[in-house]
Amino acid sequence: MKNPSASMLVIGDEILSGRTRESNMHFLAIELSKVGIDLKEIRIVKDYRPAIISAVRKLSTSFDYVFTSGGIGPTHDDITSECMAEAFNCKIDINIDAKKILEEYYLGLGKDLNSARLRMARIPEGAKLIKNSVSAAPGFSIENVHVMAGVPKIFQAMVLSILKTLKRGRPNISKTLKLLLAEGDIADLLKKTVADYPNLSIGSYPFVKSGKYGVDIVINGDSSELIDQFISTLESKIKKLKGEDLT
Amino acid sequence: MKNPSASMLVIGDEILSGRTRESNMHFLAIELSKVGIDLKEIRIVKDYRPAIISAVRKLSTSFDYVFTSGGIGPTHDDITSECMAEAFNCKIDINIDAKKILEEYYLGLGKDLNSARLRMARIPEGAKLIKNSVSAAPGFSIENVHVMAGVPKIFQAMVLSILKTLKRGRPNISKTLKLLLAEGDIADLLKKTVADYPNLSIGSYPFVKSGKYGVDIVINGDSSELIDQFISTLESKIKKLKGEDLT
Repeated sequence: MKNPSASMLVIGDEILSGRTRESNMHFLAIELSKVGIDLKEIRIVKDYRPAIISAVRKLSTSFDYVFTSGGIGPTHDDITSECMAEAFNCKIDINIDAKKILEEYYLGLGKDLNSARLRMARIPEGAKLIKNSVSAAPGFSIENVHVMAGVPKIFQAMVLSILKTLKRGRPNISKTLKLLLAEGDIADLLKKTVADYPNLSIGSYPFVKSGKYGVDIVINGDSSELIDQFISTLESKIKKLKGEDLT
Repeated sequence: MKNPSASMLVIGDEILSGRTRESNMHFLAIELSKVGIDLKEIRIVKDYRPAIISAVRKLSTSFDYVFTSGGIGPTHDDITSECMAEAFNCKIDINIDAKKILEEYYLGLGKDLNSARLRMARIPEGAKLIKNSVSAAPGFSIENVHVMAGVPKIFQAMVLSILKTLKRGRPNISKTLKLLLAEGDIADLLKKTVADYPNLSIGSYPFVKSGKYGVDIVINGDSSELIDQFISTLESKIKKLKGEDLT
């Protein structure tokens, strides 16, 4: 059976302007890999209604899950919740449970639940809340889209909480064979070996370290045995090639 | 006159699997911002032909420029050049200039220009080469798409070389007003002030530092005077609010 597929939608001008270095997608990629959900695509769009709405509609129909980050705070540039309602043609209003969560939180801080903060309780109708263990204001799930905050600490807590509830697949296993060889010297041999292992996904990533060329051969799959078999096959072919061609 | 628009297409399984932290988009975002080209969207897709082809076609028709990274090396998983040819319905073959560049480079290294390395000279017909000052194998421009390597050092050199040749706009000016206030306390006031400055793009980014809440108000625009005017207006409104409500 195939693993569930996923995509991520990052919402925020600050990434596209270069002000902020995006730091949520790496975390999400690793967590999804652990639970056997295949992350297939990431899109980053501006805080701009048509861009958000069109991206979420497209991703929602193309993949089993969509994870979004950003745009659910109290300020004028936080428009994600409104866009989700529009994308799925549903109403949006103050959610009673979300309001209660915010009331308790701001009461505890001795702060006023003013109209700006109350905006964070505006949730599309029918959506299910995602707990925010850091700063209370919840995310939410609507259809197959999980809407989360952009602040990394909050995003991470929300991802871990929502992942528990989702259907998972076979976790990805990844091993790396580090070779101190130029990528171009083994590319042909690698290509032939890869062709014999259609159930593995194999990437080749060159690097330069202390002036020396090397390449990481990264093998992904769901069978540790098959990966090991690929590695030993490739290693013995390389030894043979070294004896013949490379010195 | 409006600034040219741009998008980026990152090609590579290694980002989506979580193996590698993406590190080119931040560089590109900053460089584009300097020369007045507005980066509107980023997509990250797998080393998978249909995904690459469909993304590049869509981005190429939606934005003035597309910048791609990844997938132009010598190994089996480097399929970007073939995909670009297919996306634009043109032939792909060994490019004589690219072959000459590779021949000289590998001759200098005392290495063989084998069939795998020669693949890096396969360039869609009609494309214009982009110089690679690091490791010779060139990128290329086809229509409005600029195809570059994924290795950060090479990507950066290629971006700087190609940007010199492109039509630019008015550089973006960005200033940040750092406030040691909770975002929710000033959100309403901020919203009203923002509404008076339709030519500025204003974002609000909360942070927690040493246990204290703060918010960065980031103002982007092309007029330094207008940005300063917004900042002093907002500051005086906040002072007034502080006197009244916040202590």
